[in-house]
Amino acid sequence: MASSTAPPAKIIDGKAIAQEIRDELAKEVQSLSRSHNEIPGLAMVIVGSRKDSRTYISLKKKACEEVGMRSFIVALAEDVSLADVVASIRELNADPDVHGILVQLPLPKHIDEEKVLSEISIEKDVDGFHPLNFGKLAMKGREPLFHPCTPQGFLELLSRSGISIKGKHAVVVGRSNIVGLPVSLLLLKADATVTIVHSHTRDPDRIIREADIIVAAAGQANMIKGDWIKPGAAVIDVGNNFVDDPSRTSGYRIVGDVDFQEASKVAGWLTLVPGGVGPMTFTMLLKNTLDAAKNKVLQ
Amino acid sequence: MASSTAPPAKIIDGKAIAQEIRDELAKEVQSLSRSHNEIPGLAMVIVGSRKDSRTYISLKKKACEEVGMRSFIVALAEDVSLADVVASIRELNADPDVHGILVQLPLPKHIDEEKVLSEISIEKDVDGFHPLNFGKLAMKGREPLFHPCTPQGFLELLSRSGISIKGKHAVVVGRSNIVGLPVSLLLLKADATVTIVHSHTRDPDRIIREADIIVAAAGQANMIKGDWIKPGAAVIDVGNNFVDDPSRTSGYRIVGDVDFQEASKVAGWLTLVPGGVGPMTFTMLLKNTLDAAKNKVLQ
Repeated sequence: MASSTAPPAKIIDGKAIAQEIRDELAKEVQSLSRSHNEIPGLAMVIVGSRKDSRTYISLKKKACEEVGMRSFIVALAEDVSLADVVASIRELNADPDVHGILVQLPLPKHIDEEKVLSEISIEKDVDGFHPLNFGKLAMKGREPLFHPCTPQGFLELLSRSGISIKGKHAVVVGRSNIVGLPVSLLLLKADATVTIVHSHTRDPDRIIREADIIVAAAGQANMIKGDWIKPGAAVIDVGNNFVDDPSRTSGYRIVGDVDFQEASKVAGWLTLVPGGVGPMTFTMLLKNTLDAAKNKVLQ
Repeated sequence: MASSTAPPAKIIDGKAIAQEIRDELAKEVQSLSRSHNEIPGLAMVIVGSRKDSRTYISLKKKACEEVGMRSFIVALAEDVSLADVVASIRELNADPDVHGILVQLPLPKHIDEEKVLSEISIEKDVDGFHPLNFGKLAMKGREPLFHPCTPQGFLELLSRSGISIKGKHAVVVGRSNIVGLPVSLLLLKADATVTIVHSHTRDPDRIIREADIIVAAAGQANMIKGDWIKPGAAVIDVGNNFVDDPSRTSGYRIVGDVDFQEASKVAGWLTLVPGGVGPMTFTMLLKNTLDAAKNKVLQ
């Protein structure tokens, strides 16, 4: 049917792309196990009983099983001492069956997050949050052992959707250590012109409207409207916001930082939320753990 | 005299500001020497006989002397082995009179720069180039032991010239590990909206014209013209380009990345070249060495 309006955005289905990658990973896990008798193992440290943290851990455990990896859960009580958390990490550092170590964040307030994360052996830092890995990610001509999972998943989404980066103007909304900042640094390394927008930015809409690639990682439900988007832009929504929805039995639904309905009429590409970047993050965690196991046997 | 044109830019004299800071440092060096009998010492490792490197080293030595610090020069032959460079660094790491270690770059091609720099003890990395320092500089909520000298000097210039950063749109031209990238990261930490422009950027002039603060660190003589600058913007020129000038006995003169004559009619603030950011860089090296000595006695 002919139409005078722009064609609707191509929807990027992160779940489907993640499944494609997990199938590839499963084959690699099998082959590593056959060739070197080494099965990649991911250890997850969880402190306390936050419901969301427990959900994430069990999803990650399931994802490990699906690709044939081992997982180890170390559950510590809410009132555990810093010394005991550190002792657990050191034990995992020394365990030859553990190739990757993940500490589920946030930690209880009395535990020094920086101290805990810096205890993880650099060879097992599959989350890529060690400052040494982060420094190498930032610096030109250096490569970290592991890239943080969400930014790496984001790059994979772009590349498997055929979206080029070089010479494009990318605007990243948000500057967290986990998403906004490393995504910006990776886009810069891939030769995009990069602008980082955040809570102190004046006229964010005007700046975002310049972007060929928009990365929304502000944690503000539906913040980015249709008229903030340049027609044809690639819009990657990393938002994961819970909003009340009495029509659902759960009482809530998850929406992104981008107004999906409006954006779908303007953008060239648009990710699903949920089902966009989220599944890619878990998948990259599996990939990093596999890489850690490969690094070990190749040493 | 009344005039219909904009007032000329305030000229930022880095040499004068640097002298002001060096006077402060000299007093602190004296006081540390009196209170703890500790005299800050900077060791400089130079490989080969590049003329520019030798000039930099002798200027840095002179700057040390002026504020009452010690300096130690380790000059190695052009054909030195990597192992011998590393051995020199380790000796300096262990020397209690040495608080800061600087390796003059570039190194000869056969010497692995990354390997050499990563040997410098993190407590003596006064250049701030160790990836661990760099990672902490980049990450929100982390602080490196030392900030790289040029970016830190740049921030001091802004602050001592009364130029605020928060909420401003800063455009950084260039993305080197030494200037562009760390300057961008520090501006972001100071709550500027940051755009990083580089050789792959389309329409750099259009993007630069949006900036409240322009940092020119591209290494392209007179690249930024007057009409690339928003009236009233602060223009910090980190360029240091040698251009032929037969009218001088040296045969050359040094110009920045900004067309000074044109910019001075449009910008709100403008740094001198030479005599802008350059003297601040040396000064921050002295400050980092003093800080390293203070960190040692306060341990």
